[in-house]
Amino acid sequence: MSDTRPIGVFDSGLGGLTVVRELFRLMPGERIVYLGDTARCPYGGRSEETIRTFGLQDAQLLMEMDIKLLVAACNTVSSVALDYIERNVRDTPVVGVVLPGARAATQRTAERKVGVIGTAATIRAGAYTRAIQTLDPSIAVFGKACPLFVPLVEEGLLDHEITRLAVQHYLQELLENGTDCIILGCTHYPLLIKAIQEFVGVRTHLVDSALWTAKEVQNILMALGALSPERSGGLTGSRFMVTDYAARFKELAAAFLGAGLTSIELVELEKLTKQCAAEALQ
Amino acid sequence: MSDTRPIGVFDSGLGGLTVVRELFRLMPGERIVYLGDTARCPYGGRSEETIRTFGLQDAQLLMEMDIKLLVAACNTVSSVALDYIERNVRDTPVVGVVLPGARAATQRTAERKVGVIGTAATIRAGAYTRAIQTLDPSIAVFGKACPLFVPLVEEGLLDHEITRLAVQHYLQELLENGTDCIILGCTHYPLLIKAIQEFVGVRTHLVDSALWTAKEVQNILMALGALSPERSGGLTGSRFMVTDYAARFKELAAAFLGAGLTSIELVELEKLTKQCAAEALQ
Repeated sequence: MSDTRPIGVFDSGLGGLTVVRELFRLMPGERIVYLGDTARCPYGGRSEETIRTFGLQDAQLLMEMDIKLLVAACNTVSSVALDYIERNVRDTPVVGVVLPGARAATQRTAERKVGVIGTAATIRAGAYTRAIQTLDPSIAVFGKACPLFVPLVEEGLLDHEITRLAVQHYLQELLENGTDCIILGCTHYPLLIKAIQEFVGVRTHLVDSALWTAKEVQNILMALGALSPERSGGLTGSRFMVTDYAARFKELAAAFLGAGLTSIELVELEKLTKQCAAEALQ
Repeated sequence: MSDTRPIGVFDSGLGGLTVVRELFRLMPGERIVYLGDTARCPYGGRSEETIRTFGLQDAQLLMEMDIKLLVAACNTVSSVALDYIERNVRDTPVVGVVLPGARAATQRTAERKVGVIGTAATIRAGAYTRAIQTLDPSIAVFGKACPLFVPLVEEGLLDHEITRLAVQHYLQELLENGTDCIILGCTHYPLLIKAIQEFVGVRTHLVDSALWTAKEVQNILMALGALSPERSGGLTGSRFMVTDYAARFKELAAAFLGAGLTSIELVELEKLTKQCAAEALQ
């Protein structure tokens, strides 16, 4: 059995490209359709209701493209809206970024103390804490919101004194709490992994949610016999869509994806909303 | 002649409250209706078309509340969409934050070299440069986008080493260019005025767009004989609306406004969009 249909991946912006990179690394035969909702990015500070609405709109657009599996590569959506999307997207497996990262962390903490860093909304939602404590109630979880990390990454200040100070500002407390494993609970954060590892030291495990999400996708597709038999998938056979301003997305994509994008399509989710409203009136 | 109707003020988020603060300071008899489009904030990185659409929706919501003057307290909207809004909002004066700041700067630069700092979109749009060079073509304008400033303000790191480094990172170049006057072209930036002034030194004038916008509003209302005769306006008689998640807005409002808000209303602009779509179908 095999399935040549693409994997759908969405994020509020371009952070989800770190998940795409790991998917390509693990499964070079797979094709991706990616949606970055750059017109409404970031989802981080928004209400749960808004996040659910936006996440479902993203999912529905990808579902129209005959995908075999859907990845919510957005920590905010995965934290507060994954169940909601799963209920509305039937017959297609949905993978979020929270559970894979949480599972990897429980297997790596010797001290039974895990730190989670992410946007304010991800930390406030507490989905990583719930996921870890469901897997192992004996593990203490310390969440820390790091709102400066996304703009630092997007400014390209990956190796800069400002970033080192920001890392110290946010992570000092986690070290003082004795955590020996920290989940990078935001798809932007893998780009800061060097600065973070330097500060926390090599004895602290950093769990990259993007990597573990890609492994989860691989496991599911393998179990379903739905891996693509194609010899070459990757960038060539994939599509990348954004809802606003493709130029900036293109500028930054190379850093996230490890390769430049030649073609980025602009799509309209608002139109989708209006169409739904119009249909509802008929 | 007098006019007791409120002044309408909108911004993509809560930055516009620095303008409200200056309006209250100059004209304590005035009432304000404020709209912060927090559901779609920030406008900074979006396309011009999207910014025009969002700005007009904001304006229309306030126009329904019988205001006597409309302030676009958002630098992004003022930079790229003010003409568009003026054309669509007839018979009501519209004031943006760009021209008042530009005018004040031309009067303050002895070296004829003005720096402008703001979001990426504001700097890219170049509206301050055009406004200054229309007023005085002999003035050289140096724009510098400072994307870290907004998250630093919202993190409350007003007096922190990270902020001092970020100020240096962005403003060093403006000093090297010989600017003796810098426009704070983002409504969040007045909260960083101390850190900025410390770095640039007392000989560099900082032009606070919020202050000069409030003065412009006062001048127009005076010319129209439309100042409010009431003895007390201010917070008590004013309304504050947001499109998403009022709790965070409330948390931060005190820092921007210099006073806490007791009541913040949640309004829906999306519904407005759907209503328009529905009406168009009839």
